[in-house]
Amino acid sequence: MERVGALLTDLYQLNMIQAYLDHGETKTAVFEFFVRKLPARRGFLIAAGLDQALDFLENLRFSAAEIEWLESTGRFGENLRDYLREFRFSGDVHAMPEGTIFFADEPILRVTAPLPQAQFVESRLINILHFQTLIAAKAARMVLAAPNKLLVDFGLRRAHGAEAGLMAARASYIAGFAGTATVLAGRDFGIPIYGTMAHSFIEAFDDETAAFEAFARARPDNLVLLLDTYDTEAAARKVVALAPRLKAAGIAIRGVRLDSGDLVALAKSVRGILDAGGLRDVTIFASGGLDEDSLAAFARANAPIDGLGVGTSLTTSSDFPALDCVYKLQEYAGLARRKRAVQKATWPGRKQVWRRYGPDGRMAGDLLAREGGAKAGEPLIEPVMEHGRRLRAPPSLDEIRSRAKRELERLPEPLRRLEPGTTYPVEVADELVKLAAEVDRRAQPQ
Amino acid sequence: MERVGALLTDLYQLNMIQAYLDHGETKTAVFEFFVRKLPARRGFLIAAGLDQALDFLENLRFSAAEIEWLESTGRFGENLRDYLREFRFSGDVHAMPEGTIFFADEPILRVTAPLPQAQFVESRLINILHFQTLIAAKAARMVLAAPNKLLVDFGLRRAHGAEAGLMAARASYIAGFAGTATVLAGRDFGIPIYGTMAHSFIEAFDDETAAFEAFARARPDNLVLLLDTYDTEAAARKVVALAPRLKAAGIAIRGVRLDSGDLVALAKSVRGILDAGGLRDVTIFASGGLDEDSLAAFARANAPIDGLGVGTSLTTSSDFPALDCVYKLQEYAGLARRKRAVQKATWPGRKQVWRRYGPDGRMAGDLLAREGGAKAGEPLIEPVMEHGRRLRAPPSLDEIRSRAKRELERLPEPLRRLEPGTTYPVEVADELVKLAAEVDRRAQPQ
Repeated sequence: MERVGALLTDLYQLNMIQAYLDHGETKTAVFEFFVRKLPARRGFLIAAGLDQALDFLENLRFSAAEIEWLESTGRFGENLRDYLREFRFSGDVHAMPEGTIFFADEPILRVTAPLPQAQFVESRLINILHFQTLIAAKAARMVLAAPNKLLVDFGLRRAHGAEAGLMAARASYIAGFAGTATVLAGRDFGIPIYGTMAHSFIEAFDDETAAFEAFARARPDNLVLLLDTYDTEAAARKVVALAPRLKAAGIAIRGVRLDSGDLVALAKSVRGILDAGGLRDVTIFASGGLDEDSLAAFARANAPIDGLGVGTSLTTSSDFPALDCVYKLQEYAGLARRKRAVQKATWPGRKQVWRRYGPDGRMAGDLLAREGGAKAGEPLIEPVMEHGRRLRAPPSLDEIRSRAKRELERLPEPLRRLEPGTTYPVEVADELVKLAAEVDRRAQPQ
Repeated sequence: MERVGALLTDLYQLNMIQAYLDHGETKTAVFEFFVRKLPARRGFLIAAGLDQALDFLENLRFSAAEIEWLESTGRFGENLRDYLREFRFSGDVHAMPEGTIFFADEPILRVTAPLPQAQFVESRLINILHFQTLIAAKAARMVLAAPNKLLVDFGLRRAHGAEAGLMAARASYIAGFAGTATVLAGRDFGIPIYGTMAHSFIEAFDDETAAFEAFARARPDNLVLLLDTYDTEAAARKVVALAPRLKAAGIAIRGVRLDSGDLVALAKSVRGILDAGGLRDVTIFASGGLDEDSLAAFARANAPIDGLGVGTSLTTSSDFPALDCVYKLQEYAGLARRKRAVQKATWPGRKQVWRRYGPDGRMAGDLLAREGGAKAGEPLIEPVMEHGRRLRAPPSLDEIRSRAKRELERLPEPLRRLEPGTTYPVEVADELVKLAAEVDRRAQPQ
């Protein structure tokens, strides 16, 4: 994907920078990104998108053409345009590593920078972090619902645009998917890519067996044949009949795909047909409108399905297509700040999250505290960028994926279920409660 | 936005092209894009995204680097790589103009091209058309629920990635939104942009009035002040107190924004405070977790709200974040085709949609027919691209928006409600039923 440019932002960011510059309000600000409340069926979230967020910050520039366009709107002063011409993100960033499990109110990213910079990056930072975190959480539910199954992202077409398609592949791979159908995700991120054939391929031939054979000869490796264009069981019998002829040509059928109908019943009957035909090694791959609930139903029914292609429900997080996430000012000019709007109050100041583990190695509870000082447990937020530069090379995608796997293993059992029915304990440190009261007292006398 | 590149596709497209090339299956294919079934609460959809779809087709190329990467995967033959090197979309496209209202089973785009080309473009074509159509339909519900209100897209941050943020602005503008907060949509599409201030701006100042005044002096035009950072009604009184001082400086307060709490009650009390303070011309703008249902509730309650910023529910189409849309092979090598998979059967052949209007000028019913020959009513699908070239310059966004407005006016009354409670009549022509039976007979004897 090409760079998006600096104008992918909300107009109010530019309005505010103009006002900050006019009034010399360019002291250090601290913003944190966090989720206010988890959706009903989500017991946890997985941090994802940090690498793209840091990339955005490192490369943020206003081109001459962009500044010229801003000038043409007649909305902004020369001082703003001068400022944007030299704009570089020069701040610090602290964050939870990608692949870390987190909960409501826990910041996964903190920006410390001169106010106009820290403010300006809000729109795109949220846009990046929200989506990948959303999809990683959704994908993790599927991974937990279908243990030991091969899960593949099939959702590019109904993802919301190009970037969503690409980044959904990345986020679901982090959460434990085996790969994606999206070719660009293979090139850009080294994610394993998977693909079979569409119904149109079968339909383009006058005869289904002829279509299977043509495809097999052209694509002999990892051969997967699609069975449900006309009649799934009849197609399975054609596969059995075709197999010896392909074998003679040195071609092994690797799997079959079912994409419609009662997938549990069809998987069982197709398994029977394949086994009876001596094709015990041929795997069954299912797709077509699946979500984590269908995956769980397959597991309960012991459906002989080896792999699953999940599309729309994954890449749109269809049951909850958005998280209630925000990027909020926590400190300015050395003083903690917070919003007190009804039901939207936030914990002020720079924060750290401390996680404790039980004797079984599972997560036992988190403490949301002020930054600085040691608490019991493991601190989750670490410095990742200083003065606008990354502190180290980003971890590889497979390292991130391994972290997420370890995190899911350490998740308390009830939270691994599709209906968590419990809330993970996140305690707020007394010092933070006190700080909030102080901030409110300071803001009160008006 | 920069070009996305040719590799944003599903792997199976490349697998199929390889097989088509190997077997010389490059005759003319016809695919149509349509929605199989409308989501429960959608009585109609609005076609959107055609301009980007045609742009994609016109500019689709494989770069040397892309082909080199494909080669590095070891998956493809030299014949495929040679083919992709020269790849240009050379087909014809027929489509409904953007802004046209359509219903289930009605194609809004038809591609006629050599099979490998027509197949390859599937993933990205769906990705483009699905999203904008989804958002235009969602936005239209909001427009119908809030007649004569100023509606503004605030949803970039939680849209699914960069392209979704940008294209949601375009799609909602087509459906009747007044504009967007997304600056890039102003530059790329000429959409009016709107923006006020964030809570962080208020919080950065020690005093709320000082924050209002600083913002007013920096941004005197179209000045809108945000009231709910601490206490909405107290802030309204501060606005009243500040107004004379600003007036003396030649600055008029244009509006105030409420972003949390009971918006109906607050709008009424703030209206009272402003009116009592002589600020009758100051408008009230509301935002914060709104959707078409809250808009309808505001209208029922006669809330004195003049404008509305809608974010997440709009740009994610939160109640139904995806449409059941497909791009299906309808004809190959001169013969009509169709898939007969359970519950996924489609009408074969090239189709036209004829729309009839009642004496009141409202839409009265559609006929889904084979292309060619005249029927009663107005044909909705027209040629837009021939041999890979557009037949004419695209309509302006305002022309598209005017069409959508006219279309919404012609929609039958029950379908203009949030709960349509009725289905628009789409008849399937006998000739199409017969063609389907013929296709099935041909496919049957196996």
